[in-house]
Amino acid sequence: MSSINAHPFDPLQPSEVQLAAAIIRAALPNTPVRFKTIDVQEPIKTAVIPLIEAERRNEGTLDIPRPARLVFSYFHRLDTGSFLKALLNLTERRVVSIKELPRDVQGPADVDELVEMEEVCLKHPAVVAEIAKMNLPAGMSVCTDPWVYGTDDEREDRRLYQCYMYIVPVHHPQSNHYSLPCDFSPVFDAATKELVRIDNLPTGGGHETQETQAWKPVKAVEYAHDLLDEPLRSDLKPYIVQQPQGPSFQVDGHLVQWQKWRFRVGFNVREGLVLYNITYDGRNVFYRLSLSEMTVPYGDPRKPYHRKQAFDVGDVGLGITCNQLALGCDCLGHIKYFDGCRTDSKGNAVTLKNVICLHEQDGGILHKHSNYRNGHATVVRNRQLVVQMICTVSNYEYIFAWILDQAGGIEFEVRATGILSTMPIDNDITVPWSTNVGPGVTAPNHQHVFSLRIDPAIDGFHNTAVYEESHPLPASLGIPDPYGVGYIATTTPLTTAGHTETDISKSRVFKIRNDNIINPTTKAAVAYKIQTLPTQPMLMRPESFNRRRARFAEHPVWITKYRDNELYAAGEFTNQSKSSTDNGGLETWAGRGESVVDADLVFWHTFTLTHNPRPEDFPVMPVERISVHLKPAGFFEKNPALDVPPENRGFNGSREVETGKSCCVKL
Amino acid sequence: MSSINAHPFDPLQPSEVQLAAAIIRAALPNTPVRFKTIDVQEPIKTAVIPLIEAERRNEGTLDIPRPARLVFSYFHRLDTGSFLKALLNLTERRVVSIKELPRDVQGPADVDELVEMEEVCLKHPAVVAEIAKMNLPAGMSVCTDPWVYGTDDEREDRRLYQCYMYIVPVHHPQSNHYSLPCDFSPVFDAATKELVRIDNLPTGGGHETQETQAWKPVKAVEYAHDLLDEPLRSDLKPYIVQQPQGPSFQVDGHLVQWQKWRFRVGFNVREGLVLYNITYDGRNVFYRLSLSEMTVPYGDPRKPYHRKQAFDVGDVGLGITCNQLALGCDCLGHIKYFDGCRTDSKGNAVTLKNVICLHEQDGGILHKHSNYRNGHATVVRNRQLVVQMICTVSNYEYIFAWILDQAGGIEFEVRATGILSTMPIDNDITVPWSTNVGPGVTAPNHQHVFSLRIDPAIDGFHNTAVYEESHPLPASLGIPDPYGVGYIATTTPLTTAGHTETDISKSRVFKIRNDNIINPTTKAAVAYKIQTLPTQPMLMRPESFNRRRARFAEHPVWITKYRDNELYAAGEFTNQSKSSTDNGGLETWAGRGESVVDADLVFWHTFTLTHNPRPEDFPVMPVERISVHLKPAGFFEKNPALDVPPENRGFNGSREVETGKSCCVKL
Repeated sequence: MSSINAHPFDPLQPSEVQLAAAIIRAALPNTPVRFKTIDVQEPIKTAVIPLIEAERRNEGTLDIPRPARLVFSYFHRLDTGSFLKALLNLTERRVVSIKELPRDVQGPADVDELVEMEEVCLKHPAVVAEIAKMNLPAGMSVCTDPWVYGTDDEREDRRLYQCYMYIVPVHHPQSNHYSLPCDFSPVFDAATKELVRIDNLPTGGGHETQETQAWKPVKAVEYAHDLLDEPLRSDLKPYIVQQPQGPSFQVDGHLVQWQKWRFRVGFNVREGLVLYNITYDGRNVFYRLSLSEMTVPYGDPRKPYHRKQAFDVGDVGLGITCNQLALGCDCLGHIKYFDGCRTDSKGNAVTLKNVICLHEQDGGILHKHSNYRNGHATVVRNRQLVVQMICTVSNYEYIFAWILDQAGGIEFEVRATGILSTMPIDNDITVPWSTNVGPGVTAPNHQHVFSLRIDPAIDGFHNTAVYEESHPLPASLGIPDPYGVGYIATTTPLTTAGHTETDISKSRVFKIRNDNIINPTTKAAVAYKIQTLPTQPMLMRPESFNRRRARFAEHPVWITKYRDNELYAAGEFTNQSKSSTDNGGLETWAGRGESVVDADLVFWHTFTLTHNPRPEDFPVMPVERISVHLKPAGFFEKNPALDVPPENRGFNGSREVETGKSCCVKL
Repeated sequence: MSSINAHPFDPLQPSEVQLAAAIIRAALPNTPVRFKTIDVQEPIKTAVIPLIEAERRNEGTLDIPRPARLVFSYFHRLDTGSFLKALLNLTERRVVSIKELPRDVQGPADVDELVEMEEVCLKHPAVVAEIAKMNLPAGMSVCTDPWVYGTDDEREDRRLYQCYMYIVPVHHPQSNHYSLPCDFSPVFDAATKELVRIDNLPTGGGHETQETQAWKPVKAVEYAHDLLDEPLRSDLKPYIVQQPQGPSFQVDGHLVQWQKWRFRVGFNVREGLVLYNITYDGRNVFYRLSLSEMTVPYGDPRKPYHRKQAFDVGDVGLGITCNQLALGCDCLGHIKYFDGCRTDSKGNAVTLKNVICLHEQDGGILHKHSNYRNGHATVVRNRQLVVQMICTVSNYEYIFAWILDQAGGIEFEVRATGILSTMPIDNDITVPWSTNVGPGVTAPNHQHVFSLRIDPAIDGFHNTAVYEESHPLPASLGIPDPYGVGYIATTTPLTTAGHTETDISKSRVFKIRNDNIINPTTKAAVAYKIQTLPTQPMLMRPESFNRRRARFAEHPVWITKYRDNELYAAGEFTNQSKSSTDNGGLETWAGRGESVVDADLVFWHTFTLTHNPRPEDFPVMPVERISVHLKPAGFFEKNPALDVPPENRGFNGSREVETGKSCCVKL
């Protein structure tokens, strides 16, 4: 039981989960409880800054008071059916508060619940009877993906799951059931385990449905290597990354140091990977970086598909769905893994092995210049540090990575892969909101709307956000421009909390500055820029539940004044939420309109992957990659990577193909 | 002399350069000539298609007539001073035509000319006198980068160079003279070698200039490793790529085969790297891919900077400026190099060794899915083939790469690095069109405007371009949408040659279809999509010479009906051009407004890197990366990379850091 020694940014350890469960049980004697979440409570920023500032300055920290280790839990009382939230002080082994949550608040899905829902659904006599109607051949079975129910009724307060049903074409652990969606979908009440109804799914061009039909045999489109008809490619030669001296990073607990960067790897069950206290060469850069929320609304207007809107962070939790990574299958080179931890429904700690990985990669050339007069060149390669998690949200996979470079840059990379969410479709039917991806199967248009939360600390914790634009030289400057070539960068400070837009037509770029520190080279305030990704906002109508539940999706940039516990763009409880405003919500916080000049501000970036499927995205999707860059822009006096040593054959062992000779130096 | 056996897409060989020069000399006996360019003439498309179609079908090609090997040359008659273009038939060793070009047409810069201009400038007594005024300390010298002159006068018909002058701070082959720009700039006539004038450069906040001043000593900002004050990083460990079985590609002459791709590597002195006849698994995809033009206008309105507008393709040639690549310094792994060839001013062939490189790289995960019920995962890594050239255009470096993947995708990647173009600036002055990057030195805002030329062959040579957009479900479809969630993809064909815009607000994506071939999965025409890069257009005023010389910069997408020899977006002759329309020009070809439905069309994409410098971009710039993806979108019936074998430790030799154990399999 060593929680007292934990760093405030350390993720919860199994012993802490057990202790938290014990404290709750002791506080509610003789009360049957079912645990949903036990996780670390974010430390109060002002309480943690003295500690991390001393650490940054390499000063002693023994005299610095550490904030108490706080943990929260969502749990159900099984006697009353109520849903509660507890806040615990683990350091003092006591309850801070336990409060009952409103009746219509639904907590996130949890693993035990999802497993139970699958079982309940597949064993229910009405579902068994429906399956029988399909007359499946021997050897085929049926499985279900219980989906978060979504919202279409203000008055709904039951906890519901929409169970989408699929035929498992062959007995194989990777048989692609998403290729054979059934045409019916039971809805269950998760509290009572009762069947609410069975929805028949539209399979034609309109809203019409019919009774569950006998299955018309079609061939499933499989992705697993040993289920393919075609032979594997035989001409791909091994590509091996060797690091004979090991990696260039150092890890001490959750503290990572690499190439002048220093940061802490955090983990919680909701956001999964979080980076804390990111400094470069002893200077503060960011306090906290995380993916705050992601919502995925689908564009099929028909019942029950109109409710398909997942919040993959709030409804389940990226920390719950992230993969336990296998060595060498997901990354190359030398890999350091971090574990996570969650509770099960009984309050037992479950270790999540290898959910975060840390490794280096080569990103090509970082900088090069040749003096054309003499051919002498300086070239430096772009070594990068990748901190990554991969989340499987039923059918989809998301690969999230923070990529740090040697020139002060950080890139947040999202790669979408996995399997499209599919629906049955009749022969010879096409619909304009969907792409047919195989026989009898179609994949609807959808959007992945991400909210990236950037809590900056540009050379300190008081910053100012601005945007810069490129404009033709205005006559008002009084500089003659007879040939009409002049153009300038203009700066617009964002002085109050709120939201703003991107604008490609002006090359608008956002910056976070520290106006108290002037760069001696530029004579302007030190700054980082946020290379926002201009994308189409959410396509659903303004008064749709999809929009009301995720107002963060309506604008690409939001600024809030920092307050503790304002972390989740669509609010604390997203599962079956009616409105993001009911649960906090970015629009509420930004709507306060506080001054954010030289203030502790938070920059939120909403960006969207509008995904109208290709057949090439099925049965498993080649990665679709998007990313947001955070780059120094006047933070340093010159390129901070000049001191990266040069590359040469002795260092990297490259070979020329035609000579076939072995490398000229020993490795 | 084996030109008869050359493939029509092969670049010119040294023997062919020599032969071409000999043919011209023989055609003009007793005439002194100075050669500028000798290069392969693009074969007539209809003449080459029978050959490449037979090759694609693996049929015999012996019976197929090969187009005659054509070569063109730009050269000067030294007796008349005229500038001429010759077209030669090397197969028949004869002149097809020699024509004199109009008086005000300037050919591109050539290497011998640039070397000569440097010498002429630095030795000229007036320049020597100007240098003397700076009173430089012993050990410092002066060099010059002769710049293309640009345009500010319709009547100018002299061939001019603006020589920007720099102090070389120390005697070292990589001393960074761009850190110490001089405040004067001579202009020379390249034909007469005469000094036209010496421009004094503005160094304050306005247009004012003064006489060349005594140099005020400041410390240069150096980039070369052995000129740095700070020590190099010592904590970067080697990262080695090994390919013990060699690369996965096969090369036969200029034919490359890799992972179902087959294409020919072309090279010419103007565009440098060109890809021809790109097929995947025996299906036509693209006929020709190239960077057609790039123009770089600068945003400083003051004389003589108002004329700074380089056309790095047309004014010099990417094939002239591309680096001769050193093994392992620029790329990792097994590398295949291709040589290029140019003429010198005497008609002698100059081999350009290793100007194009071919290698594989690992692009992370290509696709992954885990069955969450049992944890069984399929994961495939994203092996990529990179065909690359790196061009040094005086101060700047551009890294151009075509990146092919295993899922039918091609990415055109541009990385900008090298050194900013700099100007002198007085102490304590800042100007809004420029960023100070060191003591006494500032780097003006500028744009890099690229024209990517995509000559498609989607399952054949007759294609149709369309754009798709995402829109809320329109009521006109008659599909009830009571919850306001429906959204559809709409398609708009581009039926006539012309230009069109990007539109992020509608997720507009361009596709090139073959309406004659229907994908059985989607029941729609096979297609590739062009993921255009929406960017700010050129910022200069509409009637500026910058815009008139590069109308291609005004719209992001252009469609033309294919005609032979319409290759260069800003026209054939860009050096000191008055208007792109004078020399061909994309706007002329697109302006014909021909039908491009089911036609041999060309898709041109203009995209811009608006570069307002950061101090971090100096003295050498960390790469700024932009790219355009070409991806199958209904071209295949399913993910074409399913047959890529899985990765495992035995294949890629990755290791876990903490166990420290050696890899579990022998390599």
